[in-house]
Amino acid sequence: MLDELRQEICLANQELETSGLVKLTFGNVSGIDRDKGIFGIKPSGVAYADLKPEQIVLIDLEGKIVEGDLRPSSDTKTHLKLYQSWQSIGGITHTHSIHATTFAQAECPLPCFGTTHADHFYGEVPLCRALDPEEVEIDYEGNTGVAIVQHFEQNGLDPITMPAVLQKHHAPFTWGKNAKDSVKNSIALEVCAKMAIGTLQLAPASSPIPAHILEKHHQRKHGANAYYGQ
Amino acid sequence: MLDELRQEICLANQELETSGLVKLTFGNVSGIDRDKGIFGIKPSGVAYADLKPEQIVLIDLEGKIVEGDLRPSSDTKTHLKLYQSWQSIGGITHTHSIHATTFAQAECPLPCFGTTHADHFYGEVPLCRALDPEEVEIDYEGNTGVAIVQHFEQNGLDPITMPAVLQKHHAPFTWGKNAKDSVKNSIALEVCAKMAIGTLQLAPASSPIPAHILEKHHQRKHGANAYYGQ
Amino acid sequence: MLDELRQEICLANQELETSGLVKLTFGNVSGIDRDKGIFGIKPSGVAYADLKPEQIVLIDLEGKIVEGDLRPSSDTKTHLKLYQSWQSIGGITHTHSIHATTFAQAECPLPCFGTTHADHFYGEVPLCRALDPEEVEIDYEGNTGVAIVQHFEQNGLDPITMPAVLQKHHAPFTWGKNAKDSVKNSIALEVCAKMAIGTLQLAPASSPIPAHILEKHHQRKHGANAYYGQ
Amino acid sequence: MLDELRQEICLANQELETSGLVKLTFGNVSGIDRDKGIFGIKPSGVAYADLKPEQIVLIDLEGKIVEGDLRPSSDTKTHLKLYQSWQSIGGITHTHSIHATTFAQAECPLPCFGTTHADHFYGEVPLCRALDPEEVEIDYEGNTGVAIVQHFEQNGLDPITMPAVLQKHHAPFTWGKNAKDSVKNSIALEVCAKMAIGTLQLAPASSPIPAHILEKHHQRKHGANAYYGQ
Repeated sequence: MLDELRQEICLANQELETSGLVKLTFGNVSGIDRDKGIFGIKPSGVAYADLKPEQIVLIDLEGKIVEGDLRPSSDTKTHLKLYQSWQSIGGITHTHSIHATTFAQAECPLPCFGTTHADHFYGEVPLCRALDPEEVEIDYEGNTGVAIVQHFEQNGLDPITMPAVLQKHHAPFTWGKNAKDSVKNSIALEVCAKMAIGTLQLAPASSPIPAHILEKHHQRKHGANAYYGQ
Repeated sequence: MLDELRQEICLANQELETSGLVKLTFGNVSGIDRDKGIFGIKPSGVAYADLKPEQIVLIDLEGKIVEGDLRPSSDTKTHLKLYQSWQSIGGITHTHSIHATTFAQAECPLPCFGTTHADHFYGEVPLCRALDPEEVEIDYEGNTGVAIVQHFEQNGLDPITMPAVLQKHHAPFTWGKNAKDSVKNSIALEVCAKMAIGTLQLAPASSPIPAHILEKHHQRKHGANAYYGQ
Repeated sequence: MLDELRQEICLANQELETSGLVKLTFGNVSGIDRDKGIFGIKPSGVAYADLKPEQIVLIDLEGKIVEGDLRPSSDTKTHLKLYQSWQSIGGITHTHSIHATTFAQAECPLPCFGTTHADHFYGEVPLCRALDPEEVEIDYEGNTGVAIVQHFEQNGLDPITMPAVLQKHHAPFTWGKNAKDSVKNSIALEVCAKMAIGTLQLAPASSPIPAHILEKHHQRKHGANAYYGQ
Repeated sequence: MLDELRQEICLANQELETSGLVKLTFGNVSGIDRDKGIFGIKPSGVAYADLKPEQIVLIDLEGKIVEGDLRPSSDTKTHLKLYQSWQSIGGITHTHSIHATTFAQAECPLPCFGTTHADHFYGEVPLCRALDPEEVEIDYEGNTGVAIVQHFEQNGLDPITMPAVLQKHHAPFTWGKNAKDSVKNSIALEVCAKMAIGTLQLAPASSPIPAHILEKHHQRKHGANAYYGQ
């Protein structure tokens, strides 16, 4: 069932390691079939190099396992909540990539200092608040998803133009059209975070990219008249 | 047509990824045949590993596509403007390499702190101003080329001895005798930028390399009596 | 004798190099068979790529070589002391990995700034004092082990929940259930140290992760009701 | 002639690239046969991957080319001067490795902050002065060697226990028993420089390793009663 989706999710998870984004098993990718209302996600703690498409766990939008012998990623309920809330996304990636995680740990949103960032994220990548003890106790992973969705609602953010968030004290989540696209956004986020740390080191009072250049770069790649790519 | 040139440009583009300079599709290389007045450039958004010589887009010096089914790099008009203005260059590379881009984002020119830099760039690598909203609106990529050429003219810079520029808020462009040579200059620029960040961290008041050592290193590699290489 | 253990230790040592944790021969891994009371350790100064299982030196818990033609790692007596004192550990790794060693050199314990750290180490990774001249003179490597064990006793630390230490002016030691697990902890430690340096750079007054999130992340992976992994 | 030496020097040069120490052609290794009074060195500007043993240029101790069709490294006269002055060394490596070069550019000697450093370099790695315009004009590369040798004499440094120097505004030179050993020292130097930058970032007032630990680590690896290695 959903063999093509499993294959795609398996490859996307393996790219976490081959791209250098994660060490050990610090990350997971999922992808959804919106017609069937089922998403697939990495099984927990399995080494990327050993991962096989048939090990991808299939889950419905009520959170029930539809197929799979292995326990799904411990972060599954965060993925579930995002898929439930945002119809427009088709894939989600969670990593602990070094530099993006550094911003999450430093409790700083990621400023948009240049066009590399503008090409992927329309403005500052937001920092989502940490959960309080009760939220953690009741449903840590589910409430993480709730907090992210609320943050986007309360700040008027659109998950299409801002496909990333930094979870305070924790690490980033990114999303996209599908599993592969969500990994691309994790790769871009990590590069932007690394550049931003250096930018702040060279010029601590750096200001964000001017609005008209942010606009231009984002639109030429993602706008109605985009002319980037084929 | 121009099969050898396409082959060379294809390999030079692939070196962007294998050398670690770029992630995803953050960069492009072009090369020109001056006799024919035609340059070839990477198609937009195509993965480096998948790139084939026959996909290189051929363009004349008026900016018309001569051959190629794919849309050329979105930065094509910047390359075009540089080829039009500078007869002496044969190849151009644009990357978002981490440390060179960090200087562009921090709005700092790259000081010449040592011989690694002097071997490739004759002095401080300049920072070119950002475009204003009107310039962006009318022709972003073309006007980027115009601004770079103006910066060199107004500051008495020679594109032969200074084969690089940092575009403010954006990223570097480098050039050279041919496509491959322009990639070499991007590699050297990235190394120099990484060293410069560390140099400023260790000694924030670092002064540039003394003039006589800059002169010696540049001349032994590039001067009339150069004795570097074969 | 103990062919399986030797094989495992050999592979774990080779992972030091392939994972990028060590250069040259800056590290060693050991593993113990508790039933036989014998541990195996890397021979001193042998290149990882050349290492063969039959070269692993077997040593009993009184420190006598049971089998092996080569001289064991110069750090053998530190490993011996930890195995003697801590029945719960099955493998030990010593590296000079860049960022963890940087904390040891800066004489700073490694704060727990996020969940990556909490997933592996239950709180701040301790800094063990340096030896005094007499301790160095009498038995440098053995007394290093003594100092580590004392530090854990005096500070109420449990080697199971805190499988790492930073030896002041020197470098980290990590341990785990077996040789492979101790290498995993060295990899995790290095990632956490790299992130912590960046965190302190971005926000010098960063505070540790809130206690309830530390607790949650550590327990979901290592607690009685852990639900991470298979 | 000297086929084995050429082979060894060729491999040592290639290790500059495979170890990540150099990009492009930013480095060279030589090795000497003391009985014959002839050393071999990399030809200038040849890519490491293309280098063949028969391309290694053989030079006598008066600086005359004994065998070789290619122009030797532009730094040959620095190597020559060191071989002439220091009978005890058998190989020399010059790189522009990122972090060691950063110290040279920042005009800082490299402090000994830990045992990784003490294992290879007996104390602070010295910074050699830059040449004045006249010295550069007359014989840049030869006078670089003269300045290094003078620095060691005037500061009572022994090239055996201190197999490295940082040339101000330029980059490091290391040496050793033979070509391969000199590359090892370049690798160790780069690691120590990277750690030292981080150490100073975490704790700007860091003090060097205590003398008794420096002594112990250096002696257990290099002293009369060394017990490191086989």
